[in-house]
Amino acid sequence: MSKRIIPLIMCGGAGTRLWPSSREGRPKQFLPLFGPRSTFQDTILRISDPALFDRPIVITSEAYRFMVREQLAEIDSDADILLEPARRDSGPAIAAGAAFAITRDKDAIVLALAADHVVRDVPAFVAACRAGLVEADNGHIVTFGVTPERPAVEYGYISPGDALSGDVKRVAKFVEKPDLPTATRYVEAGYLWNSGNFMFRASTLLDEYRGVDADSVATISKAVAQAGRDLGFFTLDADAFKQARAISVDYAVMEKTTRAAVVPVSCGWSDVGSWLAVWELSNKDADGNAAQGLAVFEDSRNCNVASDGPVVALEGVDDLVVVATQDAVLVSRQKDANNLKRLVAKLKVAAPGVTTDHLKTHRQVKRLVVKAGERMSLQMHHHRSEHWIIVRGTARVTLDDTIRMMQENESIYIPIGVSHRLENPGKIPLELIEVQTGSYLGEDDIVRIEDDYKRT
Amino acid sequence: MSKRIIPLIMCGGAGTRLWPSSREGRPKQFLPLFGPRSTFQDTILRISDPALFDRPIVITSEAYRFMVREQLAEIDSDADILLEPARRDSGPAIAAGAAFAITRDKDAIVLALAADHVVRDVPAFVAACRAGLVEADNGHIVTFGVTPERPAVEYGYISPGDALSGDVKRVAKFVEKPDLPTATRYVEAGYLWNSGNFMFRASTLLDEYRGVDADSVATISKAVAQAGRDLGFFTLDADAFKQARAISVDYAVMEKTTRAAVVPVSCGWSDVGSWLAVWELSNKDADGNAAQGLAVFEDSRNCNVASDGPVVALEGVDDLVVVATQDAVLVSRQKDANNLKRLVAKLKVAAPGVTTDHLKTHRQVKRLVVKAGERMSLQMHHHRSEHWIIVRGTARVTLDDTIRMMQENESIYIPIGVSHRLENPGKIPLELIEVQTGSYLGEDDIVRIEDDYKRT
Repeated sequence: MSKRIIPLIMCGGAGTRLWPSSREGRPKQFLPLFGPRSTFQDTILRISDPALFDRPIVITSEAYRFMVREQLAEIDSDADILLEPARRDSGPAIAAGAAFAITRDKDAIVLALAADHVVRDVPAFVAACRAGLVEADNGHIVTFGVTPERPAVEYGYISPGDALSGDVKRVAKFVEKPDLPTATRYVEAGYLWNSGNFMFRASTLLDEYRGVDADSVATISKAVAQAGRDLGFFTLDADAFKQARAISVDYAVMEKTTRAAVVPVSCGWSDVGSWLAVWELSNKDADGNAAQGLAVFEDSRNCNVASDGPVVALEGVDDLVVVATQDAVLVSRQKDANNLKRLVAKLKVAAPGVTTDHLKTHRQVKRLVVKAGERMSLQMHHHRSEHWIIVRGTARVTLDDTIRMMQENESIYIPIGVSHRLENPGKIPLELIEVQTGSYLGEDDIVRIEDDYKRT
Repeated sequence: MSKRIIPLIMCGGAGTRLWPSSREGRPKQFLPLFGPRSTFQDTILRISDPALFDRPIVITSEAYRFMVREQLAEIDSDADILLEPARRDSGPAIAAGAAFAITRDKDAIVLALAADHVVRDVPAFVAACRAGLVEADNGHIVTFGVTPERPAVEYGYISPGDALSGDVKRVAKFVEKPDLPTATRYVEAGYLWNSGNFMFRASTLLDEYRGVDADSVATISKAVAQAGRDLGFFTLDADAFKQARAISVDYAVMEKTTRAAVVPVSCGWSDVGSWLAVWELSNKDADGNAAQGLAVFEDSRNCNVASDGPVVALEGVDDLVVVATQDAVLVSRQKDANNLKRLVAKLKVAAPGVTTDHLKTHRQVKRLVVKAGERMSLQMHHHRSEHWIIVRGTARVTLDDTIRMMQENESIYIPIGVSHRLENPGKIPLELIEVQTGSYLGEDDIVRIEDDYKRT
């Protein structure tokens, strides 16, 4: 098999299970939970081998468009970014991704991955992709079935059936999240965790979906065909997309198709569905304490601290999760951290902002015009990154030691601390959109290195 | 007795027992622990009956001078503020206060009070002051002995002896903080808590101190006699004061004098020596939870939350204290909150700033000069209060509807949100020091209501 896989990263979710770090304004997939990178970034890096994977497609909502582009730029990656004009659950999102993949290749094989999962053993994951690819190409919808590490009650299970090729088997049945005795029976019977990640021929997925809900597939296909280009993003046609019925891909396709297959995998997978899961996946000290951010522990055991700023000091406590953000602090028993729903419901009344917004990062969008032949000073910012999206004209952009010519609809990311200069070498005015993102956006955060107007 | 008492408020302490709220940069006495006012402010209000109490003396360190003046201004109070050029423990501080009181009245009766104690029954406290005054005037050093509410191990005790007048008795002996069985015996034997607050004739205190350490009393008296006036504060002479031996008033005087007396009092007193004490003194909900700042409790009991900003959410936890400030979060078992010393020692290494500074309030000192006949705009600030201290010349200050003429060495406090104007009606330049205090000191926090220079 020399065919390449098109990864489709599902990046539109907005849960509160990791509140207060995760909120509508900055959901879990964009958080650096285990180190410098987010799970979205790790997901992109996981499928970065160009011998096996094609340029990824990221499907997300309008609200996260710049976050996606910034996080891609931070890891020197790129993707086609599809914007959903409304939330319609995973079924329409995957169908739109499949229809988009077909515009690249009518025989496209798509690997649909959640952006907020953790995989600790990437080679094992990639090997499973290779194994699954055979049966995806044969017209199966291949799910990734994780070999259980314990009788988990937070995942659905897959009962494997007849063998297809290698380790890949038909799916005998999907079962819902079990109670503990049932989970124990499932594990003993060789059931696998349903990871919610899939591989399929795009046309197969759409055929199966069409058998269940042809109207939705038709309107989703139309939304893709009529997608606009806006600042370098692909914007699904809103009128068409909104007509699709909201449904999960499990209900729309997986539980009805006869083509479901499963590739077993042991790759240290987790959906990181709770703070308890974060603790389980984190490096810990000898007392079982994990910390993301600065924490000090005294006479404390099996605690999990996450802070995006304040120092967190624990004294004489066990089995707690403590999460500190600029505007909210959570202190919860680890075992309760599986379900913060009642707490978050109370908070929505007492302090609505802390369940939706994030204080720390500010964003500002400006329209710039540079006259023909003019150039801005060579400058640098300490507290903000910038995105430039060329709307009209031609730009010559200097970024540290590199110079790049840019045309309409192209965009470039300027990380914090990188010297940059914008010039218009053309004959017509250069128009661009500048998106500033950072902890501080004041006009005085500017270091002018060279300036034709003598402001250095 | 018609003689008035001169209160001497000891306001120089800098403990970390209520870390992270309390630190060197903003110690416990200045914190609003139980409502809008600090214990310092409540202490001042407690001795505000002019029929019984004279203008108070506050003794504090250089570092807290403006905090003292701001907090006095907030409650419309005033005091003579003595600045200690160095920390020398409570003995020299009380001796300096006594020597200063004598400059007002050679027969002065001084009531020395800690600024960081709580008294819930103010009439009972005032009644004890009246009772003690008789024996202070008779040459006794009267301590306030609190009737124990429980066999506390965190306080020293007083064994009362022979009766003097009314309820006032001689002190048979002072005893150190006991263990629990000893404390139980003390309570059964009628011992009283040593509150560390005293009343005495200033000359008596100095005589007794002199008997133990005449050199220190001499140099402290010299420091008072040579005190300077600086921006309206009394600055003890540094060379003289620094020669005084550092010693607590207990060791210097109380444990040696034969003139010690005790007035028993039940006034809901506490020295608020720990977060556990704060919780005990706070109003609680039906589940035993107390909160200063915004807190949300789910399935949690007997917890204490203090926040100066972030919302604090607790889920499934009992018997915890959670303190959230802008740069540090403490989570401690209530019973451990008595002693944060080891934790704070670790923090001094890991994050030294959070044990000393406070981020939230900024302070800036400026020198202003207004030419003869000129005036500034009528203005108002949203985020800062200001202190003006006249150094030279004459000022006409408008504060909302009032106008006040001010001379050299006078000062005025301009609270947040109050419109104000400064004019120089004189013939020489007006020079003043402006101390700005607030969460934001940017030049753009100014609302110009009327402006001769048309900047409104």
